Formats: sequence, structure tokens, C-alpha cells
Amino acid sequence: MTAPRPTLEAVAAHAGVSRATVSRVVNGGTGVRSSLAERVLRAVDELGYVPNQAARSLVTRRHDAVAVVIAEPETRVFTDPFFARQLRGISKELTALDSQLVLLLVEGRNDYARVGRYLAGGHVDGALVFSVHLDDELPDIIRRSALPTVYGGRPDRDGEHTPYVDCDNRGGAREAVRHLRSLGRERIAHITGPLDQTSAVDRLDGYRDVLPDADPALLAHGDFTPAGGERAMRELLDRSPQLDAVFAANDLSAAGALRVLHEQGRRVPEDVAVVGFDDLEPVAEQTSPPLTTVRQDVEEMGRLMARLLLRGLERDGRERDGRERGDAQEGPGESVVVTPTALVRRASA
Amino acid sequence: MTAPRPTLEAVAAHAGVSRATVSRVVNGGTGVRSSLAERVLRAVDELGYVPNQAARSLVTRRHDAVAVVIAEPETRVFTDPFFARQLRGISKELTALDSQLVLLLVEGRNDYARVGRYLAGGHVDGALVFSVHLDDELPDIIRRSALPTVYGGRPDRDGEHTPYVDCDNRGGAREAVRHLRSLGRERIAHITGPLDQTSAVDRLDGYRDVLPDADPALLAHGDFTPAGGERAMRELLDRSPQLDAVFAANDLSAAGALRVLHEQGRRVPEDVAVVGFDDLEPVAEQTSPPLTTVRQDVEEMGRLMARLLLRGLERDGRERDGRERGDAQEGPGESVVVTPTALVRRASA
Repeated sequence: MTAPRPTLEAVAAHAGVSRATVSRVVNGGTGVRSSLAERVLRAVDELGYVPNQAARSLVTRRHDAVAVVIAEPETRVFTDPFFARQLRGISKELTALDSQLVLLLVEGRNDYARVGRYLAGGHVDGALVFSVHLDDELPDIIRRSALPTVYGGRPDRDGEHTPYVDCDNRGGAREAVRHLRSLGRERIAHITGPLDQTSAVDRLDGYRDVLPDADPALLAHGDFTPAGGERAMRELLDRSPQLDAVFAANDLSAAGALRVLHEQGRRVPEDVAVVGFDDLEPVAEQTSPPLTTVRQDVEEMGRLMARLLLRGLERDGRERDGRERGDAQEGPGESVVVTPTALVRRASA
Repeated sequence: MTAPRPTLEAVAAHAGVSRATVSRVVNGGTGVRSSLAERVLRAVDELGYVPNQAARSLVTRRHDAVAVVIAEPETRVFTDPFFARQLRGISKELTALDSQLVLLLVEGRNDYARVGRYLAGGHVDGALVFSVHLDDELPDIIRRSALPTVYGGRPDRDGEHTPYVDCDNRGGAREAVRHLRSLGRERIAHITGPLDQTSAVDRLDGYRDVLPDADPALLAHGDFTPAGGERAMRELLDRSPQLDAVFAANDLSAAGALRVLHEQGRRVPEDVAVVGFDDLEPVAEQTSPPLTTVRQDVEEMGRLMARLLLRGLERDGRERDGRERGDAQEGPGESVVVTPTALVRRASA
């Protein structure tokens, strides 16, 4: 391995002073005699000591780094293009502000405690968290870390005081179902997302807003994956063979549903019209037929999350300075952003 | 945003002691009177102070976290399945050892200085780095951070003292070309990878080992992407229309080459036999026809990188302890691992 880096202790020994004195000089603190400070700085030079950001951060609390936590196993992060797209927006925005994107990957929920330790450990200025599930411990763990945090997607049903960026899931779902109804479809099924996520619950609510009396046999549970969409579509065709439309809670589920419809000889859109949600490239354009879907600007939402977090950090900094000067405090600012959705018509409905 | 976390300074003020005393108590140091230590711990409790890992790490140098740096733009990390596969191996191994995987994403080379600051900043115990290019500043930046590092792929031509994990690129390439020759092919072309990466150079060397007198017109430059493979294949067909085989430096390039061959009416393998490199799922199995390729176990290589790094960290720790006790030092251990490759025959050759 590499040569060990000179430690603060080594500098202290070399300069013949205490660790605390070295720490104070290195961190730009005051109250050290200039002759002592000079000795310390000479030792720093001679040993090639790199002051540890960890040490400086005790004073400055600025790491120029932001953690991103996706509450899904690492394998899903790399197979669902939604995450790549959201990360792209975050990465662009953080890079523009010269802040390092630190992606904390997990294998499963057992790893959240370790993520919490890292977040509380003084390695990042804040956290961006997405794909949280309602029974996840993660939001509690993150709250205990006391780190400024912005969520992607509303974290829970009454998370009013938690800053987040979300799209208008319920309104978008209503538009999808109204569109299917406008095509004269009368038996409109819904493949849900995982109902432990608010985005899936909101899209189901939107479906119910338009079709409050829909037959429960027209509902099947999916999980936002193509395999889940296939399973749900088979279930629906078994239970309600006369269905003439499907609103799937995301594009990946819709892609799975389309494969099953094709396999079972149902023509899309003639026999069954299909609408998805997300408008993810390349999924929505490459399905057969290309997918009518509800567009949300996932990359822009990533950018907004990063911006909201960094704006909050700056405000916190100004408030701290302001309190020290005795200034009046600023208001809390906008801490929830809901972005619009839009129906994109292609061949499937 | 969230409430500010109580600082070390606040604890010091509350306990009526110096910052240095609080720091010493919190970090488990000695030399503090027990009555003072009690006062500090009471203040810690009353304020709900969470000791900063940054502070503790000055003493312990253990963050239970490992950085991964991929020297490619964030967009490529999420579109080339090679990286997802290598990260999967790393993630599994680090999780098993309860170490946090910290993926540092970049947009481009301008971001390496910032990555260097994070690596030198005392946030991780070591770094795993892959996809380095020969003219990248990254290895120098990482060397200056003095952080224990293991590379994925040989970092440069004479990087003998740098621990790395690589596959037998040259031997694998020889096997691919020998296989094409054994099929009676006489005009075997090669689509290279980006020649600023050692893996691409080694595969080209393997091709030349078997065909030292090959016509230079049978060589075309690719860049490990499908689009690069398409461009190179068009070039080859223009220049050497009589070619009867192609060894592509990776599966993604081979997939691009297959599309062009199909488009131009060349039958694979009857007219042109094609061999790739990597055996990446789902690429190699889903090409048309399925791809004969040289398999490297990318996930296992990720695991080996993580293991090599953590074993090195443990050894460094034992040596430090040993030096303090005056023990003899251990040898350097194995710091380079080269994994075997194997030809996987499918329909394309």
C-alpha cells in the first residue's frame, strides 16, 4: 500500500508542541503565540503534512460534498433508468457548484444504519434521498443525523416539514385515465406501483379520482419493474379478460404489460390501449408500439433537489452569520417543489 | 432545513471547559481529570451532541468507508454494464465487511481536483479506482492524497508498485484470434478499444502476438462503445471489403459491428466471423447472432479489488501496531492479481 500520511501527532512531536496547538494553528484558530505557530508551520512544511479536511471541518462545516442515498438495492439503481436520469440532473447541478456528488450504495435495508453513521460522521454538507418506502427506517436515521436533507418524492403522507421535490403524480394519473376515457374505453385497469411509496399511492388516487366506482378486479399490484408489470398484466387478463385499457404506474411496468398483451394476441391499441408514466428514454420510445405516457422531467427534478439543498445551506450559513451580527432572520423560503406533468401521445393509446 | 447540530464549541461552552478538553474526552483520549471528563460527558448528553466522525478519525483513522472512482463521465457509468457489474462485486464485498461504498461521480476531467480534495480530506479509508486513461491526471492526484488505493485494470505501463486487479487481456485476445484462425479465417480484422487504456493496448498486443504480419488496413480504432464499433466496422468494410473475421476489443463494440455487418448484408458467421471480449450480460447473449466472446469475471474482479484494499488496510494497521511493539514487519503481500479469461463459444464465430 502507500506510505502512511504524516499525522497531526507527528507534526506535534516534530515541532515539540501539543496536538491541541497544532490543531489550532492548522485550523486557523487564534490564541497561539506567533513563535509557536511558526514552529508548527515549519513542521507542517518539513513533513509535508496535509491538514485533514476532517479537522478543518470541525471549524468550517464545509466539505463541498453532498451525499445521495437511493433507498433501493444497488442492483436496481443500475437497472432502472429513472435513477440514472435523476442522478444526471443532480450531478450536473452539483458539478456546476463545485460540490462533490457522493453516492452511498446499499445492498438492502440492513445497511441503513451504516449509511446513517456515514451521514452523521461529518463527511458531507447535506443529503439528497430518494425512492424512500413508507416503512423504511431511513428517514428516521437521517433525521437523527441532523444533516440538511432534501427528498426526491414526498417522503411520507404527513412530511410537510421535510423539503422535497416531487412531480404532480396525482394530477398526471388523472390526465392519463381521462385520456383513456376520452378514447371511449370503458374497462380501464390500473397496474399500481409498490404501495409503500407515495408516488404509487398518489397515482392510484389519481386513477380513483376519475373512476371512483371502478371494479376492484381491474386493479393489480406491480412494483415499478418490467417483471412486476408482466405478472400484474397476466393477473388482470385472467380476472378481467374484457378489459380494454391499462394505465400502468410507470413505463417499465407498461413495457412488461405490453409484452404479455402481445404474447396473448391482444392488439395495442385496438383491443387494449396502454398508458405509462415517466416518459423515460429509451424505454417509452422503444416499446412495441411506442408508449403513450405521462411525462415528468426527472433530470430537472434532480437539478431542483440539488439547488434546494444548496440554497438551504447558504441560507443557514447567512442566518448563522446574521445571528452573530444580530440581524433579523430570513423566512424559511420555499422548501417543497412540485413539478408539472404532461401527457405525451405515441401509438399505444 | 433542519435544526443546526450542537457543535463541539457549544459543548465546551456548556461545560465551561476548552474545546481541546472536549475533543480529548469525546475521542477517548487520556490526560483529562475525571471530574472534568464527567462535566464534558454531562454536557454532551444534555445538548444531544453527536461526536463528529471527522474528529474521531483524527485518532482512529477508520471511517469504515471506501471510495470508488470511475474515470469516466457519470453518463457512461450508467450506460456501460461493465461498470454496474464491477460495482456489484465491490458493493457485495464491502457490505459483507460492513464498509460503506462511497461512489464519487464526475462529469469530466475538470472534476478530478475536487475528487482529490475529497479523497485527501479524511472521509474514507481507501480508494478503488477504475477505467483510468494513460493521460489522466487522476493517478497523480490520488498518489498525492496518500490514500491506500487499488486499481481496476493496470493503471499504466510501468505501474508495478501500484496494487491492481486485472484480467489476462493479452492472453484472452490471443485466444480469440487463434480461435478465428482455427476456423480457417485468413483476413482477421481488429476493432481496438481506446488506446489510452492499458486493457485496449494489451488486447491489441495479443492480436499482434498471433498475427505479427497483419495488414495495417485490418486495424480500426474503437472506443469500447457500440457507436464506436459501428464507425470502426464501416471503416474496415470500406478499406478491406474482403475481410472474413473481426475481433472486437469488447462486447459493446462487437454489438455495433454486428449491426453494420447485418445492414450491409454480410452473414455472420458465414461471411464474417465475430468475437468480442468481456461476456457481459445481457449484451453478449442478446446480439444477433449471439456473440462468441472472451469471458472475464468482472463481478469477481470487483470483489477482489475490495478484498485487496481491505487486506492491505488491515496489514498496515497490524504493522503500525507491530512497530509500536517492536515486532518484525510482515512482507508486502500480493498486491497484483491477474484473473484468467476463457473463450465462450456462441453463434457468431
